[in-house]
Amino acid sequence: MRDLPLIDCCAPLGAPALSADEAEAAAELFAALSDSARVRIVNLVATSDEPVCACHLIEPLGLSQPTVSHHLKRLVDAGLLEREQRGKWAYFSLAPEAGTRLAGLVDLARDRQEAIR
Amino acid sequence: MRDLPLIDCCAPLGAPALSADEAEAAAELFAALSDSARVRIVNLVATSDEPVCACHLIEPLGLSQPTVSHHLKRLVDAGLLEREQRGKWAYFSLAPEAGTRLAGLVDLARDRQEAIR
Repeated sequence: MRDLPLIDCCAPLGAPALSADEAEAAAELFAALSDSARVRIVNLVATSDEPVCACHLIEPLGLSQPTVSHHLKRLVDAGLLEREQRGKWAYFSLAPEAGTRLAGLVDLARDRQEAIR
Repeated sequence: MRDLPLIDCCAPLGAPALSADEAEAAAELFAALSDSARVRIVNLVATSDEPVCACHLIEPLGLSQPTVSHHLKRLVDAGLLEREQRGKWAYFSLAPEAGTRLAGLVDLARDRQEAIR
């Protein structure tokens, strides 16, 4: 199993006492999504029924293969995507907890029970 | 009333066909939170009962007043915070829809009805 350090660690924005380390981890996760190409990659992967080949991201994004690979690596490192090698190409899917973790992170409500409904 | 262009515009990450413009707007909103000082400011404001004076952010953040002001401006420009002038100091509170908009943005589910519960 992969390690998911950034996502696993993140306390919600509305937590009563966010530490400096938690703030740093949250900022790094947001930074992973602070690029429109990476937002589009997450969108393309999230809306696919099956893992998405890196080779199928090049045309819709209009970017070179090395650039797409760089963005994919950032998203995997942030724990948002999972990578699976199939022969020559790598395939990508959403990390299982990516949605839940992101939703928890942006939870601005002070009472977490009430926050994400 | 202030204009909230970035937040109002953003389609969820799991939307079926995120446009290039929507991806750019989402990336800009994430970029506003991609700095640990801004994450901590949002946390301090979100956990306060009342609007927070800029003067009360300097000590907990350990940053200079101009730096704090810079970060506050970024967050206001992104539509996450609202600014109110009271005499010499500005006071900040969460924009009313900030939590809902962020939760919608990170919605990775393909069926929005099921997404944020």
